[in-house]
Amino acid sequence: MLKVIIVGTGNVSYHLQNAFSQSKSVDVIDVLPGRSDFSRLFSKKNPDYKFIDEADVFIIAVSDDAIKTVSGQFKNIPKLIVHTSGSVSINAIPNEVRQGVFYPLQTFSKERQVDFKTIPICIEAKELNDLELLKALARAISDKVYEMDSKQRKALHLAAVFVNNFTNHLYQIGNEICQENNVSFDLLKPLITETASKIETLDPIDVQTGPAKRHDRNTIEHHLAQLNVQKQREIYALLTQSIKETHEEKL
Amino acid sequence: MLKVIIVGTGNVSYHLQNAFSQSKSVDVIDVLPGRSDFSRLFSKKNPDYKFIDEADVFIIAVSDDAIKTVSGQFKNIPKLIVHTSGSVSINAIPNEVRQGVFYPLQTFSKERQVDFKTIPICIEAKELNDLELLKALARAISDKVYEMDSKQRKALHLAAVFVNNFTNHLYQIGNEICQENNVSFDLLKPLITETASKIETLDPIDVQTGPAKRHDRNTIEHHLAQLNVQKQREIYALLTQSIKETHEEKL
Repeated sequence: MLKVIIVGTGNVSYHLQNAFSQSKSVDVIDVLPGRSDFSRLFSKKNPDYKFIDEADVFIIAVSDDAIKTVSGQFKNIPKLIVHTSGSVSINAIPNEVRQGVFYPLQTFSKERQVDFKTIPICIEAKELNDLELLKALARAISDKVYEMDSKQRKALHLAAVFVNNFTNHLYQIGNEICQENNVSFDLLKPLITETASKIETLDPIDVQTGPAKRHDRNTIEHHLAQLNVQKQREIYALLTQSIKETHEEKL
Repeated sequence: MLKVIIVGTGNVSYHLQNAFSQSKSVDVIDVLPGRSDFSRLFSKKNPDYKFIDEADVFIIAVSDDAIKTVSGQFKNIPKLIVHTSGSVSINAIPNEVRQGVFYPLQTFSKERQVDFKTIPICIEAKELNDLELLKALARAISDKVYEMDSKQRKALHLAAVFVNNFTNHLYQIGNEICQENNVSFDLLKPLITETASKIETLDPIDVQTGPAKRHDRNTIEHHLAQLNVQKQREIYALLTQSIKETHEEKL
């Protein structure tokens, strides 16, 4: 049985607790707020010290900015200490401890349940033993476990910003255009679902459609004239240009 | 039984034929290529004339540019003539005939089957009788039938470019970033699915996350430095700026 202490009480912590609670090989023995007084907690004078000392791994699930400060307080703990961030290097964990990363690649919010089995977990560690430990930990909750270095993980996180954060913003612009014209955004939902489903099996470059792809200047000009918001026009023009260039290169 | 002739043999025609073939109230009596010699076909000397004359509606499912030319040849046919385009006005159909629009809002490709029942069909006609006919036709294949004018339909088509064509291009950029870093694009697929699923029930503005939303300048600068392709940097910067402004306005 792997014993885990999770530090932090945000969305990632919440969903990890949920996922581990359904596993028979992992026991979350404690969840500590990120603002805890760790020096007191890890003092041998603390009556709970022995309990805390039983942990195999500490998962620091705090905001990116806080990882360094929080994990800095673990310098004297001879444990595997991992953070859960896509964009932060493994070296943000102090090198006095056994450093690691345990990054579940998904967007989490407390209102939505997620099926952790399908969520890729990207792991990294400096020692082979630690990598094996993280592998066991990840496999306890997910069928998709990937070893990668910090550079690869950061690239993945950057790609995730495009397919998640930026895509959601395009949904928002679509919603605004609908609202301005008294059309329900619901009409676009089957299209959004199909667009996302297509690339499950097909390469996005092969399923690109639309006026930019087919160089339909007439429709592009009409669309630009329809847009009242300057930023929306800029986004339309830039993405249209980028699609054109991508598909010219391909010829 | 509604009798339909479809003109055009592309993706929309293919999927409409499929959908109507499963309906008991609609009979597709013929499918004519867009390049047919319609003057010969509609001549009373044509032995098939009577058969063609039985049609209640002609669906012109050809490319946007061709709608005017193709439907222009129907001037002498006292029938309901509809096109299937999101971005073309009802007036592209000659006003000598009964004009209409029958726009299924979905992205079609021959390789993928679609469930027509869930696809919104936007209809428009000048006469009430024709609108009723189109309503019956649409309801035969879809549970989602909407009357709207050309301006609303064009707005919807524009919004669709953002949520479908542009989103797919962001998937493509995500894929490129993965390839450059030897990470499989498959890792992003659960995130893409979740991003699309979230807005089924939640407003996109309420589920926006990421460095732009939280004004995380540090991560934004790191991301820009990671991007080697100029166009990708421009897209990152513009969408980041747009997310920032959208969420400042909201405060």
